[in-house]
Amino acid sequence: MANRAYNFNPGPAALPLEVLERAQQKFVEFENSGMSLMEMSHRGAIYEKVHFETEALLRELMSIPEGYKVLFVQGGASTQFAMVPMNLLPPGKTASFVATGSWATKAIQEAKLFGETAIAASSEADAYKRIPAIGELEYPSDAAYLHITSNETIEGTQWAEYPDTGIVPLVADLSSDILCRPIDVSKFALIYAGAQKNLGPSGVTIVIVREDLIAKPSITVATMLRYDTHAKNDSLYNTPPSFAIYMVGEVLKWVKENGGAAGMEARNREKAELLYAAIDGSNGFYNGFADKGSRSIMNVTFTLGNKDLEGAFVKESETLGFSGLKGHRSVGGLRASIYNAVPLESVQALVAFMADFQRRNG
Amino acid sequence: MANRAYNFNPGPAALPLEVLERAQQKFVEFENSGMSLMEMSHRGAIYEKVHFETEALLRELMSIPEGYKVLFVQGGASTQFAMVPMNLLPPGKTASFVATGSWATKAIQEAKLFGETAIAASSEADAYKRIPAIGELEYPSDAAYLHITSNETIEGTQWAEYPDTGIVPLVADLSSDILCRPIDVSKFALIYAGAQKNLGPSGVTIVIVREDLIAKPSITVATMLRYDTHAKNDSLYNTPPSFAIYMVGEVLKWVKENGGAAGMEARNREKAELLYAAIDGSNGFYNGFADKGSRSIMNVTFTLGNKDLEGAFVKESETLGFSGLKGHRSVGGLRASIYNAVPLESVQALVAFMADFQRRNG
Ligand SMILES: Cc1ncc(COP(=O)(O)O)c(C=O)c1O
Ligand SMILES: Cc1ncc(COP(=O)(O)O)c(C=O)c1O
Ligand SMILES: [Mg+2]
Ligand SMILES: [Mg+2]
Ligand SMILES: [Mg+2]
Ligand SMILES: [Mg+2]
Repeated sequence: MANRAYNFNPGPAALPLEVLERAQQKFVEFENSGMSLMEMSHRGAIYEKVHFETEALLRELMSIPEGYKVLFVQGGASTQFAMVPMNLLPPGKTASFVATGSWATKAIQEAKLFGETAIAASSEADAYKRIPAIGELEYPSDAAYLHITSNETIEGTQWAEYPDTGIVPLVADLSSDILCRPIDVSKFALIYAGAQKNLGPSGVTIVIVREDLIAKPSITVATMLRYDTHAKNDSLYNTPPSFAIYMVGEVLKWVKENGGAAGMEARNREKAELLYAAIDGSNGFYNGFADKGSRSIMNVTFTLGNKDLEGAFVKESETLGFSGLKGHRSVGGLRASIYNAVPLESVQALVAFMADFQRRNG
Repeated sequence: MANRAYNFNPGPAALPLEVLERAQQKFVEFENSGMSLMEMSHRGAIYEKVHFETEALLRELMSIPEGYKVLFVQGGASTQFAMVPMNLLPPGKTASFVATGSWATKAIQEAKLFGETAIAASSEADAYKRIPAIGELEYPSDAAYLHITSNETIEGTQWAEYPDTGIVPLVADLSSDILCRPIDVSKFALIYAGAQKNLGPSGVTIVIVREDLIAKPSITVATMLRYDTHAKNDSLYNTPPSFAIYMVGEVLKWVKENGGAAGMEARNREKAELLYAAIDGSNGFYNGFADKGSRSIMNVTFTLGNKDLEGAFVKESETLGFSGLKGHRSVGGLRASIYNAVPLESVQALVAFMADFQRRNG
């Protein structure tokens, strides 16, 4: 049996043990080819099969309709913060953003470099503890797009449902909650997500984009930052991060074996409910950070009533085999990231530790 | 014993078997951490050690002097074709290029998007069969930089020695020959190289850049495409492609164990000489593509006197366990890529096959 930590890392994050074990088996020699996947040309038949099967599986699991391209690009979601406005925000138009927290703020700052931006709603005054209600959003009907951050990884908030933006293209950062639940992709113009939380290792970013939005940008854009470059070449314009894409494919197979998007949602809700119940039932020893209606099922953020105990909580947790429970340096407190691959057993162990810690320190 | 092909792939390419086997061992659990390296936060102590050790080893093996930053970035060398002019070519200045072949041409085309370019020398009229002599180069003494492609992967040519450009910054694409031999880094202002030929898997690009050139660009540049972003944050501004960087570190350990840059050069020269001797000794059955003085010790390009036999050559080679011998679709013919990790035995087997094929078809 593998020695496994209780892995609550915020990203890169836990991967399914089965996936790691299968990939390990094929690591030195991939399918009787006499070489590892990392040693193969990206123009060869074996890699191409992996590449296109990974795409097909993502289409299947997310029910991506016809009329959308799936791209595998490099540079992380941080590069998408620039690629989205460079490609979709022409001069004279405005991109509207919902300011929900740390990652939305980074997306806004980057977009400002390339065009006009506006804020459709903000929860800054509430310390980003909540996702604005859909009714609060205000954006021009001719906006270039409305950008939302589906899950704020640092604050631990998540959109419970998505706005219906009509003809305004809806762009969403799903880096920390892609495939955590079924979604209606047809509501979105563009979805992007770094792979390293729910889908695989770091090093590849998924972009799902409506074909009618893929065009030559109206400003000068580096070839590698143009969506049309990658779309025309099936993400093989240059050497792709082939091993990372392969790992995403293996994770997707595991998602399929475990009930697809709906199966993930059931798993994730069970884990999240267990953890939030532990927090809410602690009589203020633990306090949830996010407003109840905006709670994330991916990143559970909380503080201790007695802040002085937080250091001891993290330290003790680490000696017991827990990893990643310290909150992000920008907001402090504690955070348990419970992405798809985090098993229920890890959350059960955490809840038991929390109760024990409270008994000893409460 | 692992079943190993004779791997002559142009990139992604052969990796040392020992490196693959060691990484396989640690694939599911990395150093008693209870998780794989891919599941770890890039802000944690274990990954940081890997990250900075990889950098230190590259500095040691390439004798990188003080005053240079080593960056790990995403997007491949194709992204560097844009990042170099975006960061180093201010309005009013000219970037000069030596047009040596397919990759130099791509670099020039991309730079044109961002500023003034000029050609310091070109071998286009000679079908890019040679590297221009250093004495042929003409560029303004106030050029923003002179760009060269150290090894033209497709044509199979390589600079035997580098120009001394004085105060003009020398920028070089070493994607297909980094660490194939000792070089004097102090001659260069900036070196870039995708990892996927000599250093590791695809998904990470190495940039070695003189510190005085790292500054806020004079035009608007996406945060992720600014060298100063990555330099200030030790390549940890956002989530790095951590597994690819780890693999580069493992390959570098192997380079060190095998004599460092000088050891690689001896290995590579022995392989290249064997192969070129087989071509030159074939009485015109095989013909080298590159001029003798410009021959690459990384990519050996050749044609068959009877072009009609080239298809059969590739096909037969594949049934015998050779991989990657078909020339690039843009120039045709044959190509054996003999990067650092390709063992002498593979080249010996190829030379034997070439002789046998000639005997049967000559
Ligand atoms: C919601 C969200 N967006 C963007 C990013 C940035 O991703 P990357 O590090 O891949 O650039 C993150 C990283 O944690 C994230 O959680
Ligand atoms: C010399 C050279 N430059 C640039 C590139 C492009 O590299 P990438 O595919 O990483 O963008 C290659 C790829 O083969 C190359 O050989
Ligand atoms: Mg990344
Ligand atoms: Mg990425
Ligand atoms: Mg690449
Ligand atoms: Mg790369």
